Amino acid sequence: MRNFSETNITEAVLERIAGATDPRIKQVSEALVRHLHAFVREIRPTQKEWDYGIDFLTRTGHMCDDKRQEFILLSDTLGVSMLVDAINHPVPEGATETTVLGPFFVQAAPEKQNGDDISGSMEGDPMIVTGSVSTVDGKPLPGAVVDVWHSDNDGYYDVQQLDEIGDLAMRARFHTDANGRFHFWSIKPAAYPIPHDGPVGEMLEAQGRHPWRPAHVHFMISAPGFEQLVTHVFVAGDKYLDSDVVFGVKDSLIHDFVHCPAGRAPDGRMVDAAYYHLNYDFGLKRAAGNPQAA
Amino acid sequence: MRNFSETNITEAVLERIAGATDPRIKQVSEALVRHLHAFVREIRPTQKEWDYGIDFLTRTGHMCDDKRQEFILLSDTLGVSMLVDAINHPVPEGATETTVLGPFFVQAAPEKQNGDDISGSMEGDPMIVTGSVSTVDGKPLPGAVVDVWHSDNDGYYDVQQLDEIGDLAMRARFHTDANGRFHFWSIKPAAYPIPHDGPVGEMLEAQGRHPWRPAHVHFMISAPGFEQLVTHVFVAGDKYLDSDVVFGVKDSLIHDFVHCPAGRAPDGRMVDAAYYHLNYDFGLKRAAGNPQAA
Ligand SMILES: [Fe+2]
Ligand SMILES: [Fe+2]
Repeated sequence: MRNFSETNITEAVLERIAGATDPRIKQVSEALVRHLHAFVREIRPTQKEWDYGIDFLTRTGHMCDDKRQEFILLSDTLGVSMLVDAINHPVPEGATETTVLGPFFVQAAPEKQNGDDISGSMEGDPMIVTGSVSTVDGKPLPGAVVDVWHSDNDGYYDVQQLDEIGDLAMRARFHTDANGRFHFWSIKPAAYPIPHDGPVGEMLEAQGRHPWRPAHVHFMISAPGFEQLVTHVFVAGDKYLDSDVVFGVKDSLIHDFVHCPAGRAPDGRMVDAAYYHLNYDFGLKRAAGNPQAA
Repeated sequence: MRNFSETNITEAVLERIAGATDPRIKQVSEALVRHLHAFVREIRPTQKEWDYGIDFLTRTGHMCDDKRQEFILLSDTLGVSMLVDAINHPVPEGATETTVLGPFFVQAAPEKQNGDDISGSMEGDPMIVTGSVSTVDGKPLPGAVVDVWHSDNDGYYDVQQLDEIGDLAMRARFHTDANGRFHFWSIKPAAYPIPHDGPVGEMLEAQGRHPWRPAHVHFMISAPGFEQLVTHVFVAGDKYLDSDVVFGVKDSLIHDFVHCPAGRAPDGRMVDAAYYHLNYDFGLKRAAGNPQAA
């Protein structure tokens, strides 16, 4: 087991990991070695290019902290996140399609009541979001947990500007009411470039790509017995719908954010300025363990 | 360009990077996307497994600093470093074979004179290393730069214990004399486990592998007009020669470290204790631009 050359090194590594006791770890390790070696054999990197690769990954890791996840951005921009999503989430009739989680989700979003305004101190065009959560065959789901988060007017999330704004904003957790409905006020999100001052931005530029995502609101919806839904609703008409840098757009997730004049809003409130209204109905897929699973 | 599924996402990403202006970046990016997606399609990771992968890479990046390069360890232990080495260094007759650089090379090693003892404050079995540097057809190369580095008695490098020992040790830069020869004193290195308290150690354990490398001395040798040689000389008889965790051993690089009694050493010095003697003759391959290149 020595004298490894281009022709026998892959076999040697595979033999070495054949002793993994967990069959899944063995399977994933073997696949990793085969595909990684095939990649290296195809591109035949110079030593300097390999050094660059090591440095790229190191800088990507160093860019990650509790506010920034550069490896998720890398996975997103290489289309891997959407591939993993597609593999894990075949969507039955009536269920809302899924898309990437993205790097701006926060575990402990503030709990809010239906009707609350979650825009905090942020300024922008008022927006009311109304929605329902139901089973694939249309039965309302009361008590579902609805996490929402979105960017501001300029395309920045709260976590990207916490030092200036002080508190989380444009981000909250709601529960659906007895009719499976929820609603809240905020400001209309804008299209935004993913953070591109790091290695991923360097990659996008070298690949001749822009870093933009079309405007959207993120939703993560959970109910006992149902698969957690991770998705967005995109603003119809956005100019980046056909070139989302993370490949996340699906037609069924594009929706009108209707421009409404001042007056009585859908929640009965009188508003003295024009606002936008998004209404979206979500369908949750039953989990495998659910007795009513399709 | 939306509605991406398992069947069309790879094509979509390839189309997106088709605009890269640098042909090499285009080629490497395309190969990366194809092989990475093929890996994901083969293993079909759950969302939780993908999360683990992101976390593994993030922790690997966070482990890297100026004293530790966990991504090089990852590349080494997956056999990628040796594959890149094999691709870049076909070895003509008379040239010394190459092996991995490893994570313990330091750019600015102390300059020393032939005959110096580089063991610093370290204790261990005395070792004299004598060697020559020549062309593949045996012409001596005076003035060649010879960087050497090796572990201590317990298998640790200076940079792993700088806080305790204060200075670099068992590491130096020499120049060959008029006859293309160099020699120095140090202590005999021991076999060692690569640092395995991080993600790479976690991977090795899951794969049922030990983290050990057979004892060796690193050499990096440069001379104008010749390819830089990066290699080791391994201690004959070491029990890990057939299971080096980084796949770096080649028969031609295994050599006796001869145990010699107290008395007159090869450099003429009288020594009052037994010592080890390594003598190795290195052959450098001419660089492509060298008018005498083969
Ligand atoms: Fe987003
Ligand atoms: Fe070493």
